Amino acid sequence: MGEPERAAANAEAVRRMTGAQPVLVDVLPAGQAIPGIRPNVILTSGPPMDWDMYDGGQRNAVIYGALYEGLAASAEDADAKLRDGRIVLGATHDHGCVGSVAGIYTASMPVFVVENAVGGNRAYCNFYEGESRHRLNYGSYNDEVRRGLDFLRDELAPVLQAVVRGSGGIALKPIISRALRMGDELHSRNTAATTLFTRELMPQFIEYAVGISRERALTALRFFAASDYSFLRLSMAAAKAMADAACDVPAASVVTAMTISCRNFAIRVSGLGDEWFSGPLPEVSCRLFDGFTAEDVQWIGGESHITETVGLGGFAQAAAFGLQAYQGGSAEEMIRMNSGMYQITVAEHPDFLIPYFGFRGTPVGIDIFRVVGTGITPVIDGGLAGRNGGQVGAGILRAPLACFDAAITAYQAKYGN
Amino acid sequence: MGEPERAAANAEAVRRMTGAQPVLVDVLPAGQAIPGIRPNVILTSGPPMDWDMYDGGQRNAVIYGALYEGLAASAEDADAKLRDGRIVLGATHDHGCVGSVAGIYTASMPVFVVENAVGGNRAYCNFYEGESRHRLNYGSYNDEVRRGLDFLRDELAPVLQAVVRGSGGIALKPIISRALRMGDELHSRNTAATTLFTRELMPQFIEYAVGISRERALTALRFFAASDYSFLRLSMAAAKAMADAACDVPAASVVTAMTISCRNFAIRVSGLGDEWFSGPLPEVSCRLFDGFTAEDVQWIGGESHITETVGLGGFAQAAAFGLQAYQGGSAEEMIRMNSGMYQITVAEHPDFLIPYFGFRGTPVGIDIFRVVGTGITPVIDGGLAGRNGGQVGAGILRAPLACFDAAITAYQAKYGN
Repeated sequence: MGEPERAAANAEAVRRMTGAQPVLVDVLPAGQAIPGIRPNVILTSGPPMDWDMYDGGQRNAVIYGALYEGLAASAEDADAKLRDGRIVLGATHDHGCVGSVAGIYTASMPVFVVENAVGGNRAYCNFYEGESRHRLNYGSYNDEVRRGLDFLRDELAPVLQAVVRGSGGIALKPIISRALRMGDELHSRNTAATTLFTRELMPQFIEYAVGISRERALTALRFFAASDYSFLRLSMAAAKAMADAACDVPAASVVTAMTISCRNFAIRVSGLGDEWFSGPLPEVSCRLFDGFTAEDVQWIGGESHITETVGLGGFAQAAAFGLQAYQGGSAEEMIRMNSGMYQITVAEHPDFLIPYFGFRGTPVGIDIFRVVGTGITPVIDGGLAGRNGGQVGAGILRAPLACFDAAITAYQAKYGN
Repeated sequence: MGEPERAAANAEAVRRMTGAQPVLVDVLPAGQAIPGIRPNVILTSGPPMDWDMYDGGQRNAVIYGALYEGLAASAEDADAKLRDGRIVLGATHDHGCVGSVAGIYTASMPVFVVENAVGGNRAYCNFYEGESRHRLNYGSYNDEVRRGLDFLRDELAPVLQAVVRGSGGIALKPIISRALRMGDELHSRNTAATTLFTRELMPQFIEYAVGISRERALTALRFFAASDYSFLRLSMAAAKAMADAACDVPAASVVTAMTISCRNFAIRVSGLGDEWFSGPLPEVSCRLFDGFTAEDVQWIGGESHITETVGLGGFAQAAAFGLQAYQGGSAEEMIRMNSGMYQITVAEHPDFLIPYFGFRGTPVGIDIFRVVGTGITPVIDGGLAGRNGGQVGAGILRAPLACFDAAITAYQAKYGN
């Protein structure tokens, strides 16, 4: 495999990724929307692992998912059923899903159904739980968390289902493109996108209020619109639909997914199928919420950096200087990090533009050879989970070099030097 | 008057300006809302002038206002009535109003009523006419323009009145502060503010749709939300309410208003009462719309730079890099110009913060002594009117030094050297 062939393959992969047109087409329970999600299935972030391998907050989160779904009567019962297969644990990415932090999916949870209008592939993401620091996806579980999940399923989802169906589908790429001109990078900042998305659906909210129930419409609207992070789950599903469009291009060396479990960081590569290439957990520089120290941070999974995989998040930081208030840093540092990403990618996004860079396209298509060649690893904006559950801060993660090294070894074994 | 006394006076003026809390409290016809606006009154941008002094597009716009309001049967009839006082021409600023470009107000036109909750002073601005390049405020008049104005009065205003009253008042400063973190500078870019404002009123739009008419609610919402400039008129009224709060502080040398007529550029100063200090029309560097040349630009008035007077617009360019697409320039140039404004102002705004500058407050309180001392004049973002009516471009205006020189002469005459 010569460099020209690899370059051509990468160009094709990135053409598919950047040409994808993610459209929100429905809202459904995971068990109805996603092939293979039987009632006893739980999904979680990270590459597939044996149940024994999970520990800490991610292990807790899976058990909490089992309790929430009514699959087990107690943590011990859940553990026993996860061991003997009465509860089946799966990896989100294997089902077209992406997990936020621990990324727990159970069959009754509502998901956004996003379809790539170009390739036809579908991706899914469940809902943002709201502004409490205690959320199932951050490894927390109590009455408040459970009531919050019930609200998503019983109150928010039916209204969103009706308004999304009433709209005939909402194209997500125009919203993402526009939000980049309004201070979002679509990973740790989704303020503009949430507002634009809500505005897009206003006629349908009004139809719902007039035709079915003003109270339900207002309650759903207030919850969704009040949280600046509501759109993150749509940004993630859209990114997954875009990234999946670039999978399985023979000889392409661009990354199509990055994931974190409680054990490791791992990537997938277009020309290398479904295999995950692992490295250690990422390095992080972060701003912790008041009262927390670095000792409190715990890795419990995460896949929201599917956004970085398609040229958003850390790859669009210079569009979102407002993020300093959330995750620390400075505008200069954000510009420096964002600029660095052009050295490890094969293209500039035709639709995702950064005003500060004179509307230059965001860097897109992370090339494992460029990462290893430069020693520069992907910059990732992210939230941080705490040892005792809940979010404790936010910051910048750096993907580990080791998984790119491992991917190159596999690439050379498959395609030659 | 020594420098310490002047500095103290300026600090007080800016404290009042930045401490003001503009709240949208009502929507009313100008004739009902604004003291002194009798049915035969027309307001226009700029210092008060004799009718003979108006020419070009601004003269036309006043005549068009008379025709629209039914005060005259023809242009000749309007001219005759403006000469003999049957139609009374007034200056917007003398009535708490600010004019966008020609700034025509007639008694039946709806206005936003904004009250400073701290000082109790009120300010007004009429509505954005929509996205056509042909608008009365840009000196155009035809069936389309007239139908557009009818729509604002008969369709949009009643719905906005109901939703604003239903809301109990909308605080504008939080929206402005937030929009600065979302890529607006609140003069030539109001995309985020328009969206945030609409979101704030969504519950009331839904109430209106359920209770009165879904069709009217949707029509009004679609019009208001569809235009990125809808909020500009609220930004202007809010700025006028904030600037007026700083008027009449003895010995204060900060600017409380800037205006443009077809003849000149003029400023008011806090310690110098209602007097206008004039200079020549501003220099401009602009991006013209396709098909227009510099020859097509004509000055027909303008007061939207009340936003710059309170630390927005050109004084917040580094918050709005997206503006390059509209008015040309580069991010570097915007940063340089915005930074320069700190040299001619006496304070940094406590609530209007620029993410790119690490959340530094915008420069606020233009000091006539600093302007003349440095030779740096205020940077103003603005739209440009054409010789034959309509908008022909957008760009950066520079206030002329002469009006600051004139103000200093008056200041020294009043307060000594």
